[in-house]
Amino acid sequence: MRAIAINCTLKRSPERSNTDALLDIVLGALVREGVETDTIRAVDHVIAPGVSSDEGDGDEWPALRERILAAEILVMASPTWLGQQSSVCKRVLERMDAMLSETDDDGRPVAYNRVAGCVVTGNEDGAHHVIAEICGGLNDIGYTVPGQSWTYWNMGPGPGPSYLDTDHGHDWSRSTGEAAAANLLAVARALAANPIPPPPS
Amino acid sequence: MRAIAINCTLKRSPERSNTDALLDIVLGALVREGVETDTIRAVDHVIAPGVSSDEGDGDEWPALRERILAAEILVMASPTWLGQQSSVCKRVLERMDAMLSETDDDGRPVAYNRVAGCVVTGNEDGAHHVIAEICGGLNDIGYTVPGQSWTYWNMGPGPGPSYLDTDHGHDWSRSTGEAAAANLLAVARALAANPIPPPPS
Amino acid sequence: MRAIAINCTLKRSPERSNTDALLDIVLGALVREGVETDTIRAVDHVIAPGVSSDEGDGDEWPALRERILAAEILVMASPTWLGQQSSVCKRVLERMDAMLSETDDDGRPVAYNRVAGCVVTGNEDGAHHVIAEICGGLNDIGYTVPGQSWTYWNMGPGPGPSYLDTDHGHDWSRSTGEAAAANLLAVARALAANPIPPPPS
Amino acid sequence: MRAIAINCTLKRSPERSNTDALLDIVLGALVREGVETDTIRAVDHVIAPGVSSDEGDGDEWPALRERILAAEILVMASPTWLGQQSSVCKRVLERMDAMLSETDDDGRPVAYNRVAGCVVTGNEDGAHHVIAEICGGLNDIGYTVPGQSWTYWNMGPGPGPSYLDTDHGHDWSRSTGEAAAANLLAVARALAANPIPPPPS
Repeated sequence: MRAIAINCTLKRSPERSNTDALLDIVLGALVREGVETDTIRAVDHVIAPGVSSDEGDGDEWPALRERILAAEILVMASPTWLGQQSSVCKRVLERMDAMLSETDDDGRPVAYNRVAGCVVTGNEDGAHHVIAEICGGLNDIGYTVPGQSWTYWNMGPGPGPSYLDTDHGHDWSRSTGEAAAANLLAVARALAANPIPPPPS
Repeated sequence: MRAIAINCTLKRSPERSNTDALLDIVLGALVREGVETDTIRAVDHVIAPGVSSDEGDGDEWPALRERILAAEILVMASPTWLGQQSSVCKRVLERMDAMLSETDDDGRPVAYNRVAGCVVTGNEDGAHHVIAEICGGLNDIGYTVPGQSWTYWNMGPGPGPSYLDTDHGHDWSRSTGEAAAANLLAVARALAANPIPPPPS
Repeated sequence: MRAIAINCTLKRSPERSNTDALLDIVLGALVREGVETDTIRAVDHVIAPGVSSDEGDGDEWPALRERILAAEILVMASPTWLGQQSSVCKRVLERMDAMLSETDDDGRPVAYNRVAGCVVTGNEDGAHHVIAEICGGLNDIGYTVPGQSWTYWNMGPGPGPSYLDTDHGHDWSRSTGEAAAANLLAVARALAANPIPPPPS
Repeated sequence: MRAIAINCTLKRSPERSNTDALLDIVLGALVREGVETDTIRAVDHVIAPGVSSDEGDGDEWPALRERILAAEILVMASPTWLGQQSSVCKRVLERMDAMLSETDDDGRPVAYNRVAGCVVTGNEDGAHHVIAEICGGLNDIGYTVPGQSWTYWNMGPGPGPSYLDTDHGHDWSRSTGEAAAANLLAVARALAANPIPPPPS
């Protein structure tokens, strides 16, 4: 089983990302179960605006798309700005929109029999909404979203510290993230054993 | 396999519900696959405000809750008002919130190994958001949301006819609803064969 | 100048409402500026399902509607469940939906030249989204939403104490609430002095 | 009075933008009232990721920010992808996030006494949600959102034609857009005559 994580922080490498720190908890739990993991920091790449799978010269999306489709498990990780997902996360979802009309050899949308979950961090508030938006987009494309396949960290009300600046709530975010990893893996395995069948031809 | 549908129209029986008409397509596809179905029209029942599983005198939720938990597949159906789910739908989600802390004999949240999908109708616009809100809530509680497990009908921009007043887009809503039924059933079966395991004790 | 507050808690009077406690800060700031205030606890009333201004026998909405339209300033106050507004809040918005097609003597939608803001409380997360949903609905109907006309309190991540159980963040919620009151009043006064004109006849 | 429009299409100039076509209706109505207008097609500019007002080398945001702050009226225009605002629109909002802590000479947040509205286009569904998200973000920053200060065009259910490919619903989108222009201008004028006062010092 393979997992791909997409960290949608606004900070380019090697700047430290709070989102990365929380994401590592989920990935660590997957690795301990034998899952191979791969991580993309999206902002390090040129992801052209558009909704096709290849927007031409300089577009690095085609190579990222291959890495995404090599994995049965997708973990989208986003910071929260204005109570919403990052623009980098939205860009990734837009490019994945093309998957709506791409099918595998059996005629199934390419996202079928894959599972997705989320990791959300913020200085204030908004994780539930960000999770609903990301999972809503991925579900639209065809990903299955296992129950409780997310974790988050923030600390309202109003602006406050970042995840790495405090210990507040870390235990909850960690145990929730480990449960998310277990749920993602269990549903990915269930679908591997009994895939959504091809449509009647 | 059993499915429960909750029609969250604002109209009491026996008034005709557009949402019911579209819901019937999804349920019909499930019945043809041998699924037993049960339907609740929520507004016909007294569902008390609150977030516990029994709000006392006159509260009809405990009996509805039993019917919901008797099914592996949940289909939430809602009209769209102001681009949002109905108040009846939100009331049902609030009462299901109690399931967050209710576990089965093996210590798993009661919603685990169940799947959920949506049916949304409207005179204007908003289905994607309603689907994200409903599925976000149900995923929070523990339901798994199979890829593309929803259908909808509306016809923007601005106010317009209801589903039963026109043929516009019915083919798309029907074929999307039938695909939703197939996806709900496939993931429900995959989880029945390989359930999310109990947490380590 | 008059203000109407609608507390959309799920708790019936006289049970203590956290939302009420935060709402009182905004109303207190308005009273100090000479604004007359009136408060509805919506769950204490029978507000029938529907989207007309009078749903018949037993519907208490018509009297509430009169109180809402007697005020130039509206403050909607809601708790947060599953990261979303309460079902009681959504019910109020649904009934206000009828105002979309109701006009004053000059042909303007009845909500024009009125302003609206929000107060949101929660045990966890979701205030930004609840504010966007409530203000989005009220703006759809015709209310003007002054900049920063809201306050909120919560304390993620995960479940935690209620507003009245802790002092965490109270200062921020209070000063933000007082600024919201000032902004609501300033824009209400600006519109009273220079109303949105009637449509050309 | 001056208005700035930000077209958040994913298409670079000179490709034809459906969003531009609907935006022109709102801007045309403003021009007829003597408003000076300026339009930014955001995707034609390098807008660096980040949440400060200047992200350094190559960042074109500082010049765009000047144009935005030269106007009392802001019209954000976005296409709809997956039922959500475009990534370009989210990027603009993120950069405007810095305005939260920027004040004018009197100590007011720079967005105070400015008004904002929306234009949304799509092939399917989602305008209400996009409007709520954009206006929610702008309101967070301090913009006042006049009642009914938006228009949209789409045509669900499911994928369909673009705005410029059909006449369906154009009349509604046009008259709604003209009303939006009138409401934006009326509230901008009311605030110019009676601004939100500076905070007590």
